[in-house]
Amino acid sequence: MWLPKQVVADMLLEFLEEDLGLTDVTTAILVDEDVEAEGVIVAKEDGVAAGLWEACILSEIVGLRVEYSIADGERFRRGDTIFKVRGDARTILAIERTLLNLLSRMCGIATATRRLVDKVREAGLDVKIAATRKIPPGLRYFDKKAVEVGGGDTHRLRLEDMILIKDNHVALVGSVREAVAKAKARASFAYKIEVEVSSIEEAVEAAEAGADIVMLDNFTVSMVEEAVKLLEERGLRRRVLIEVSGGIDEENIVEYVSKGIDIVSLGRLTHSVKAIDLSLDIRRV
Amino acid sequence: MWLPKQVVADMLLEFLEEDLGLTDVTTAILVDEDVEAEGVIVAKEDGVAAGLWEACILSEIVGLRVEYSIADGERFRRGDTIFKVRGDARTILAIERTLLNLLSRMCGIATATRRLVDKVREAGLDVKIAATRKIPPGLRYFDKKAVEVGGGDTHRLRLEDMILIKDNHVALVGSVREAVAKAKARASFAYKIEVEVSSIEEAVEAAEAGADIVMLDNFTVSMVEEAVKLLEERGLRRRVLIEVSGGIDEENIVEYVSKGIDIVSLGRLTHSVKAIDLSLDIRRV
Amino acid sequence: MWLPKQVVADMLLEFLEEDLGLTDVTTAILVDEDVEAEGVIVAKEDGVAAGLWEACILSEIVGLRVEYSIADGERFRRGDTIFKVRGDARTILAIERTLLNLLSRMCGIATATRRLVDKVREAGLDVKIAATRKIPPGLRYFDKKAVEVGGGDTHRLRLEDMILIKDNHVALVGSVREAVAKAKARASFAYKIEVEVSSIEEAVEAAEAGADIVMLDNFTVSMVEEAVKLLEERGLRRRVLIEVSGGIDEENIVEYVSKGIDIVSLGRLTHSVKAIDLSLDIRRV
Amino acid sequence: MWLPKQVVADMLLEFLEEDLGLTDVTTAILVDEDVEAEGVIVAKEDGVAAGLWEACILSEIVGLRVEYSIADGERFRRGDTIFKVRGDARTILAIERTLLNLLSRMCGIATATRRLVDKVREAGLDVKIAATRKIPPGLRYFDKKAVEVGGGDTHRLRLEDMILIKDNHVALVGSVREAVAKAKARASFAYKIEVEVSSIEEAVEAAEAGADIVMLDNFTVSMVEEAVKLLEERGLRRRVLIEVSGGIDEENIVEYVSKGIDIVSLGRLTHSVKAIDLSLDIRRV
Amino acid sequence: MWLPKQVVADMLLEFLEEDLGLTDVTTAILVDEDVEAEGVIVAKEDGVAAGLWEACILSEIVGLRVEYSIADGERFRRGDTIFKVRGDARTILAIERTLLNLLSRMCGIATATRRLVDKVREAGLDVKIAATRKIPPGLRYFDKKAVEVGGGDTHRLRLEDMILIKDNHVALVGSVREAVAKAKARASFAYKIEVEVSSIEEAVEAAEAGADIVMLDNFTVSMVEEAVKLLEERGLRRRVLIEVSGGIDEENIVEYVSKGIDIVSLGRLTHSVKAIDLSLDIRRV
Amino acid sequence: MWLPKQVVADMLLEFLEEDLGLTDVTTAILVDEDVEAEGVIVAKEDGVAAGLWEACILSEIVGLRVEYSIADGERFRRGDTIFKVRGDARTILAIERTLLNLLSRMCGIATATRRLVDKVREAGLDVKIAATRKIPPGLRYFDKKAVEVGGGDTHRLRLEDMILIKDNHVALVGSVREAVAKAKARASFAYKIEVEVSSIEEAVEAAEAGADIVMLDNFTVSMVEEAVKLLEERGLRRRVLIEVSGGIDEENIVEYVSKGIDIVSLGRLTHSVKAIDLSLDIRRV
Repeated sequence: MWLPKQVVADMLLEFLEEDLGLTDVTTAILVDEDVEAEGVIVAKEDGVAAGLWEACILSEIVGLRVEYSIADGERFRRGDTIFKVRGDARTILAIERTLLNLLSRMCGIATATRRLVDKVREAGLDVKIAATRKIPPGLRYFDKKAVEVGGGDTHRLRLEDMILIKDNHVALVGSVREAVAKAKARASFAYKIEVEVSSIEEAVEAAEAGADIVMLDNFTVSMVEEAVKLLEERGLRRRVLIEVSGGIDEENIVEYVSKGIDIVSLGRLTHSVKAIDLSLDIRRV
Repeated sequence: MWLPKQVVADMLLEFLEEDLGLTDVTTAILVDEDVEAEGVIVAKEDGVAAGLWEACILSEIVGLRVEYSIADGERFRRGDTIFKVRGDARTILAIERTLLNLLSRMCGIATATRRLVDKVREAGLDVKIAATRKIPPGLRYFDKKAVEVGGGDTHRLRLEDMILIKDNHVALVGSVREAVAKAKARASFAYKIEVEVSSIEEAVEAAEAGADIVMLDNFTVSMVEEAVKLLEERGLRRRVLIEVSGGIDEENIVEYVSKGIDIVSLGRLTHSVKAIDLSLDIRRV
Repeated sequence: MWLPKQVVADMLLEFLEEDLGLTDVTTAILVDEDVEAEGVIVAKEDGVAAGLWEACILSEIVGLRVEYSIADGERFRRGDTIFKVRGDARTILAIERTLLNLLSRMCGIATATRRLVDKVREAGLDVKIAATRKIPPGLRYFDKKAVEVGGGDTHRLRLEDMILIKDNHVALVGSVREAVAKAKARASFAYKIEVEVSSIEEAVEAAEAGADIVMLDNFTVSMVEEAVKLLEERGLRRRVLIEVSGGIDEENIVEYVSKGIDIVSLGRLTHSVKAIDLSLDIRRV
Repeated sequence: MWLPKQVVADMLLEFLEEDLGLTDVTTAILVDEDVEAEGVIVAKEDGVAAGLWEACILSEIVGLRVEYSIADGERFRRGDTIFKVRGDARTILAIERTLLNLLSRMCGIATATRRLVDKVREAGLDVKIAATRKIPPGLRYFDKKAVEVGGGDTHRLRLEDMILIKDNHVALVGSVREAVAKAKARASFAYKIEVEVSSIEEAVEAAEAGADIVMLDNFTVSMVEEAVKLLEERGLRRRVLIEVSGGIDEENIVEYVSKGIDIVSLGRLTHSVKAIDLSLDIRRV
Repeated sequence: MWLPKQVVADMLLEFLEEDLGLTDVTTAILVDEDVEAEGVIVAKEDGVAAGLWEACILSEIVGLRVEYSIADGERFRRGDTIFKVRGDARTILAIERTLLNLLSRMCGIATATRRLVDKVREAGLDVKIAATRKIPPGLRYFDKKAVEVGGGDTHRLRLEDMILIKDNHVALVGSVREAVAKAKARASFAYKIEVEVSSIEEAVEAAEAGADIVMLDNFTVSMVEEAVKLLEERGLRRRVLIEVSGGIDEENIVEYVSKGIDIVSLGRLTHSVKAIDLSLDIRRV
Repeated sequence: MWLPKQVVADMLLEFLEEDLGLTDVTTAILVDEDVEAEGVIVAKEDGVAAGLWEACILSEIVGLRVEYSIADGERFRRGDTIFKVRGDARTILAIERTLLNLLSRMCGIATATRRLVDKVREAGLDVKIAATRKIPPGLRYFDKKAVEVGGGDTHRLRLEDMILIKDNHVALVGSVREAVAKAKARASFAYKIEVEVSSIEEAVEAAEAGADIVMLDNFTVSMVEEAVKLLEERGLRRRVLIEVSGGIDEENIVEYVSKGIDIVSLGRLTHSVKAIDLSLDIRRV
């Protein structure tokens, strides 16, 4: 995920305006204009850095100078300084919460993603850990970017990017076979076609119909195993990527990924984030 | 929290546009125009309803008819239908994820808030459970509303609404006493003045200086107890509201609130939401 | 009132775009690109400066250099230069009217506010002169800021900031007592509660019910006097701030404020502004 | 001035959002959902109606039904009901101030304009009373429309609409003659060319050079008389329209317009508006 | 291409606002309010309909009733009525040009696309005719939709949707092989990978490296023939789709597509549109 | 046409955002951060430069340095470098297509306009070549500017700028005479009045009624000749400008303009643009 700075700056400025409203009443009253200060963000727990690039952009667009920032993707420890900014004290105070809200969420996502990626890598497997579109409204760029920084796969960013035939589409079209056929006939060649299936039979049906990716939705580990085996027996395994989704967590992920699949996707990476605890301290300089 | 429908509709439409991009490519290819369908949202776990009012607005603005919706604030059980909508099948599919992302987050916040409120009420106490500004960017209205629906207190919505003198303000001004004095001299009479303090001494200092609310930040239970006692001894207790913040969770909350305080505030209500699992099923009608 | 420069810049740019439309047709035709010029704003009547900070921001965002500006809050005399800017001649011409419209209004508000504040101070009283929400649409930040610069109190900025129970709320709820009780029971602790009352009885009722501020609406001077006296007799005076509103002007303000009240609020400060006459002269350099 | 309703609705909704912020906290707490009510706007002084069309649009877009509205341009008396709306009580309360701010300003402008127009008509003259671009930022459409409703001339709406060579343009180009020549050579045939002049000689120069309109800026009555006479003597009077601007008020306007001119323009119509006093009363129905 | 109506309506309203500015001055002056009229759009040349769905949305959002519209994709003849709308005369006049500008462009694109598609089909071939991103700014949804309506392939909608390694990317990475390898290693599984190649060798290199689509850029017909042959000899032909781009026009397209390729893409479909001549006639009803 | 840079920058940034979506996925994957590169735009056919000023603004706003740019209005030859930019490689790639789409369209318009202007000048005539409002939505500023750069007349920019009574207005009002009379009575003095006529009689009627410009719509050359003659005979020719519109192309334009008219307007200048072929090459520096 990457966009030119000025494009990201526009989104960040909107976030800031939401938190400010018509005035930062406390700061306006207590802090004089043109007081030079330094703001330091310290981690209060371990994690993986994400959102630092965005934090730099927000700081710069409001006229502050970034003096230090760890790189996105780096691990940090409790107590580490991860970001240091200098400039007008009022401005540092005005952006403090927007900055921390962004960073604590993005670091939270990157940290959780990295933990899963590490588990899978440690098990010697090369399965992708992907996010879904289960992201609170307005945060698509930021949450997907944090997943990527954490080592995960961004999957489809939104409805525009890929053909993903879900159960509700199948319900309206009639069958997996018909849905895939229709998609292949009508869709631009630019898109891959993925199908969400709810049974082993549908998985085979999707692969036979020519899907590029088959998503096994809410399968047990043994169902996954069986589906992979059947696809192999039918000579369909090499034609498709296999994604597993639904009910996967830190406990069972290794078991799932060891069954010969390509991708695991998890909504919880973004819909149930645990924010990383960060604090900003300011001092006059 | 309340805004006229048309104002909320504008925010919801922006959320929808983010998820769509330039086209819902899958739906456009698979589903014909003018297919009448029904979409039903079912809870996959127990919870407290929030965001239903907003779900109705989003549905209506894109031309769907809401046939059923439980009320915000109501409890639901796993398996309950909480929302039913009817109209153009393409449109239901296009808003599905935006709708679910909004509802699962808002229900998640309301459910977590209600759980804490219930704990405190069961302990026979009348302490407010408040949210903070630790809210991912762009969700201020929605997250604060969900807290309120769950029985919590919305606290300051953003920097515009209240004078809240935090540690960083004190660091720049010099002392709690000076900061409060400055605020009282300069601020509009319309605002209450709250002070975040980091020691029992500062708590007394803030109360003496005339703060309306004293926030005991990161105090242990015994420090809270002592601070309340000291304020009472000095005849300051009735002049101020006491808020406790930092490190409070489901385990220790009853202990904290039993020490004679007025408000507990928790960032985790909004920065670390656990989304409620919901699913939408569509069928042709 | 204070916001980071970049946030204010966005509002100012919108103002500029409104005045420009698709082209400054006159300037485009008559003035060549890259002509260096100086623009000087001169006061054509006495006044109090306001909006200069904003004028600097607008000038800078379009690439001009501010060479001189008096400070917001300073008094100026007819004939005084209050602002000097240098840079591209076309750009100075393009922003001229937007700049003057902003400054002449904000100076007008600050000047009128200061005149009232001075009257009250000269009478040896410490009563606040507050603005209302009677502000033409789109100018909330600017008009409230100008009031503040003039020495006035910003009062509630908008509906979000404070609980202000007006006659229409009372009409719907039933009585002042019930309305205040409902507000106290339901509102976040973060808000003060103000009640607009239309009789001396209601003033007492509001104070007894626990309002923080009682606004005596359209009271005569003697009614104000009587209300204050009654509140004192009932021991309620110290519990509440007293605001007087409606029908106050330069003639009667001293009489009103001498009756022991805390705040006077006037819609005319912002709904019926007399703009300060300013002109901009440009010369090639 | 006219725009399709939906276009105006978008501007009005933005105004409403400014006044609301994140919630109408008072109304949300005190008034239940779905209370049916009626809101009546009554004039507290005489005036000329303007902004009623816009008031209808704002009411309708938020779902209220307009039951009565006097027509824009009609005169009303103190005590007259000018607007009646019915529907959700919360919504009426939420738009009350936005509605009144808009109406009281637009009626104020229309009333002042009509007063001048009447004066001129009573003197048996057919001179246009025009507004300028001296309009607070953000209100261009509304203020110009109110002038028109009051019987005035809208003049140039903004920099896009007309070539108006002002003193600052002349200063940069060198002379009135050169400026007009340059404009005639380069400008699209779609535009009229107006020139602001500061002496009788310049007036003649502008007319000779081929200006369509000559604006006599800050001329005394006798200078106007002399300029008109000179233009007539030189056979230039029929070629140009003559506009007088600067220092005109209710006292001297008849004298000015009786000197054989075509247009009088006044900044005060819009930069120094006296709002008409209006109030809204709500009752449950 | 499909989006919910309300989303498209927002884009269309912006287009309308651009054409209107602050007023439709002619209509406001000449046509009274509430005149009922009918507007009929007639084709002045043959073509393929596109943009009619959007025309209906624009009409409805400003309160007009669509009485007749041919379907997108249908052919029309010179003299055919393609759209009929009824309602407020002022509103029909206000949207006339926006409506016609949209329709004449979209019909122009659909007509040109259909002509090429027909040529290819008549030659008995099943090659896709695709658009590029060579689309004037701001028209992405509309131009791509018109291509689709004309029977063409939408290709990548924008930079977000697909990995398309162009010559400039190769120049920076070093070689086609490295670029494809890097993309395969880092990109989300959700994307196809296309490579633009400038020689037959690079085409083979791209296919060997695992590209999903190879775009032969600015190849002569014989180079295309040779490239296809070589890919077949190397057993790579079935692994990739072959797209031909650059220098293709109505004259040579059949020759190109007969060489065994899958897709032809043409910038001229959208960067050099010939608008279809349409006119709108209005009559009072 | 001219607007301050920052105003144009905002429009350009929106264009860029449309092409990017949530990420430039290819560039993000293949090109590292902070690679310094140079991008060179070369013309692949002859033309007249337009949009270069805008290209500089877009480049600068995203942080690139423009090293070379030919001036708007200059002619260029196939093979000429017209623009050179230096800076972050990712950023150059991200703006490449937006830049080229803008430039190839604007150069296309300027080139076509210049060709017609040259024809008319070569025939020794001084007739203006004007554009219409037949411009694809969203491009008004850019297309009109390109016409101007090519030596054409911008005509009315949009509905706000001029009174142009078209056939549909006449149809509703009743006659040309009445329409002009109504316009003269009601319109601001700031506007010229143009009338589109469909017969020689209407041309005379319009001139007699006092129109400033008469547009002969879809007249044959001999009808134009006759109309001009008749206007001269009636002594009306000097009172009006004569515009000819409809069916004019490169072949017949000289014949038309030789009949004693003032302006020719052509929709095709903007509704059926032939883009100039340009390419951008990037190299690491």
